Amino acid sequence: MKAEILAVGTEILLGNIVNTNAHYISNRLAELGIEVYHQSVVGDNAERLKEAYELAFSRADLVITTGGLGPTKDDLTKEVAFDYFGKEAVLHEESLKSIENFFNTINISMDKSNIKQAYFPKDAIIMNNSVGTAPGCIIQEKDKILAVLPGPPREMKAMFEECLIPYLKKFQQGVLESKTLRIIGIGESKVASMIEDIIDNSVNPTVAPYAKEGEVTLRITAKAKDPEEANELISPVEKEIRDRLGEAVYGEGEVSIEEVVGKLLVENKFTIAIAESCTGGLLSGTLINYPGISEVFKEGFITYTNEAKIKRLKVKKEVLEKYGAVSSQTAAEMAEGAAKASGTDIALSTTGIAGPGGGSDEKPVGLVFVGLYIKGEVKTKEFNLIGDRQRIRNATVIRTLEWLRREILKCLGK
Amino acid sequence: MKAEILAVGTEILLGNIVNTNAHYISNRLAELGIEVYHQSVVGDNAERLKEAYELAFSRADLVITTGGLGPTKDDLTKEVAFDYFGKEAVLHEESLKSIENFFNTINISMDKSNIKQAYFPKDAIIMNNSVGTAPGCIIQEKDKILAVLPGPPREMKAMFEECLIPYLKKFQQGVLESKTLRIIGIGESKVASMIEDIIDNSVNPTVAPYAKEGEVTLRITAKAKDPEEANELISPVEKEIRDRLGEAVYGEGEVSIEEVVGKLLVENKFTIAIAESCTGGLLSGTLINYPGISEVFKEGFITYTNEAKIKRLKVKKEVLEKYGAVSSQTAAEMAEGAAKASGTDIALSTTGIAGPGGGSDEKPVGLVFVGLYIKGEVKTKEFNLIGDRQRIRNATVIRTLEWLRREILKCLGK
Repeated sequence: MKAEILAVGTEILLGNIVNTNAHYISNRLAELGIEVYHQSVVGDNAERLKEAYELAFSRADLVITTGGLGPTKDDLTKEVAFDYFGKEAVLHEESLKSIENFFNTINISMDKSNIKQAYFPKDAIIMNNSVGTAPGCIIQEKDKILAVLPGPPREMKAMFEECLIPYLKKFQQGVLESKTLRIIGIGESKVASMIEDIIDNSVNPTVAPYAKEGEVTLRITAKAKDPEEANELISPVEKEIRDRLGEAVYGEGEVSIEEVVGKLLVENKFTIAIAESCTGGLLSGTLINYPGISEVFKEGFITYTNEAKIKRLKVKKEVLEKYGAVSSQTAAEMAEGAAKASGTDIALSTTGIAGPGGGSDEKPVGLVFVGLYIKGEVKTKEFNLIGDRQRIRNATVIRTLEWLRREILKCLGK
Repeated sequence: MKAEILAVGTEILLGNIVNTNAHYISNRLAELGIEVYHQSVVGDNAERLKEAYELAFSRADLVITTGGLGPTKDDLTKEVAFDYFGKEAVLHEESLKSIENFFNTINISMDKSNIKQAYFPKDAIIMNNSVGTAPGCIIQEKDKILAVLPGPPREMKAMFEECLIPYLKKFQQGVLESKTLRIIGIGESKVASMIEDIIDNSVNPTVAPYAKEGEVTLRITAKAKDPEEANELISPVEKEIRDRLGEAVYGEGEVSIEEVVGKLLVENKFTIAIAESCTGGLLSGTLINYPGISEVFKEGFITYTNEAKIKRLKVKKEVLEKYGAVSSQTAAEMAEGAAKASGTDIALSTTGIAGPGGGSDEKPVGLVFVGLYIKGEVKTKEFNLIGDRQRIRNATVIRTLEWLRREILKCLGK
C-alpha cells in the first residue's frame, strides 16, 4: 500500500506553524510497512484542495489529510473531499452529541458553527475525537482510501492511534513489532557511535535512534509473520544494546522518566520533598505528572531568593556568602533542609544559572548544582548545560530525575 | 511572484526528521510578500524528483528546493534539475576551492566524492555555503527561477539569508505586514463567531484565527507598498477586534502570558508568592520562564498534602474538614496564607482534581479552584476543565495567569 500525506492549512504555507503532523504520520506508517512517496501541503482554498486530492489519488492508494476540520468557513477539507467523491453529507447524530458533550463538560455553550463538524456521508467510517471537537472519517471508494484527521497534533495523534491504526492493521501483511528503549545522559551521536555496527548491520530488526528533548530513544523494529516471531528477532538485539549502554537505558516503551521514578518511590514507600531554585517548580511539577505520586510526595519549596532558602530550608547564611547560592554546598544544604523540614526519606534540590543573565566567567549560564538527600546521606552533582533558559531548566529536571532513579536503585542494592 | 517549496529527502518521508526548512522558508517568503501555495516533499528518487520539478513549475514561478546536495549517489537534486533544464554541469573551480578550504579548517582530508558538489551549469548563480560544504545555486530560465539550497537547517538558513534573500529582494513588490493578537479564555470557535463578519469580509488586511494549546491567536495581515501603509490598513481592523473581544486579548506578537504577567509584576514592583496543590509547581515554573521575575518572585509552596497546607500556609483544619481540600474556601486560605508567610503583595493558589483518579459526582476530575490575594483582598475562581491530567494542569496554569493579569489591571484602575 502506498500512502500520501496531505496537510491542509494556510497557516503552514505562511510559516506560522511547523508541519509536525506529517513527521508523526510518516514515522508511524513506516513502522506499519506502508510506503510514503509524497508529503504535500495545500492552503485553505477549495480549488487547490480539489487539485491536491486529484494529484494525491493519482499517486497513492491511501491519502491521509490533517487539518481543516474546524468550525469556520475556512475549514474545507471534509467538504471538498465529499464533493471529490461525489458524496452527500448528512448530520451524524452521534457525533453531534459527542461535540455537545464536549462543550457541556467545559461549561461552555456550543456555538452553532460547530454543527458543521458533525456532517459526514452516510457510508463514511466516523473516527471519534477523544480530546477535541472535530471527528474525523475514513472514506473507502473502490481501491482508494481517504482518512481525514484533525490538525491540532494532540487531537490528530489520539485519533490516529485510537481509530486509524486499528483500521490500517487490516491491510497489513505479517506484523511489524517495535520496542523502544529510552536513554538519558548520553547524547544521540554518542549513542549512535556506541552501537554503530548494530545500526549499520540492522536489516530485520532495524534499529533507529531518535533525539527527543533531553533524551534519546532507540527503536528496534522487526517484521515477522506473528508477534512471537518478531519478539524473538528483537530480543537478542535488545540484549546486546542494553549490555553496551548499561544503566543509561532508564525505561522502555511509552514511559517517561517521572513515571519510572514515581513508581520506584511509591513501590518502595520512599517519601520525597523537593527544594527548587533555578527550576522554580518544574521539577516538582514534572514528578507530579505521575498520578500515583500523592502517596509519597510531601511538599515542595520554591526558594528562589536567599531569604527563602534560609527561612524554609535552614541553608546557612555563611554558606550562601562563602560559596554563593549556585554551589554544591548550597545544593547540599537545600536538599538536607527540605528533607528535615518535611520529614521525608528523600529530598532533591536544584540551584543554577538558567540565564540569559546572571552568568560569569567562573559560573557561566548553564552551570547547575543538584542535591540529593537519601536515607541520611547527602550527595551533589554538577551539570554543565547548554541552550536557552527553558532548555537548561528542562534538562536539569530530566537529568535530576534520572540521577534520582540511579541512586534509588543503588540504595536498594540493585 | 508565486513560490513553491520542494524538500528532497527520503528521511523526511520515513519520518526520521521534521521538515523545519519548509516552515522557515515559508515564513520568510511571507514576510517578503511572496506567496506560497504548495509545499511538497519527495524522496531521493530521480524519476519522482523530475516529476516534482515538472509539477512545481506548472504551478509556481519560483521553486526552492532543500536537501539532496550531499556527496553521495543518493543526492540527486542538482543533477535532476540540470537535466530538467537541459543544462550541462561543469566544474566550478571557486566552489571546489572553498570546499577544500572547509575540510582544511576542520583538519580532515577531503574525500574525492565531494568534488561532485562543485559542479554547476556555466550560467548558474552560485550560492556560497558559509557553514558547510555544499554550495547552492540559482538557475533563471525564461520566467522560471530555481533556487537549490542544502538540507541541514543551519546551512540552509545561512545560504538563504546571505544569498537568496538579496537576490529575491529585486523582485519584491510591496510588503506584507502581520500583527498577531493573543487571546486566552475564549475558544477558537467563539472567537471566530464574535468576529465572523470581520473574518468573512477580510481581503486586505486578511484576518485568520489559529488555536494553540490553551490559547487562540488572530493574525491580521496587510499587503501594501510600504510598512506604513500596511500598518494603516491593519490599525482600524485591530481596533474593531479589540473592541469586540475586550480584555481577552492579553498580548500581541511573539509574547507569552507569563511574559505579560511577569512584566506587569516587575514594572509595578508587585511581589508575589504562589501556593500550589494540583498544579504541583507548574504555575511557579511557568511564571519563572520570564527571566526578569527574580526581582518580584519571593517563593513558592507546593503543598500537596493537607498537612503541608496547614503547616506552611496556616489553612485551618476546620476549613479542610468542612469544605475539603478542593474548595474555594481552601483556595482562599492558601492564597492568603502564602502572602502572609512570604510578606508579598500578591499570592496565587491552586487546588483541584487533575485526575485520572480522585473525582466524584460532586467534585469531578477537572474541577479546579484558584485563589488570589491582592493588596489585602482575597478572591477565588472556579474552573471546569477537560482533558487528561497534564492538560488540566496546563490549562489551570494558563487561565490562572490570565486571571492574575486582569486583576492586576483592575487593581491599577486600568
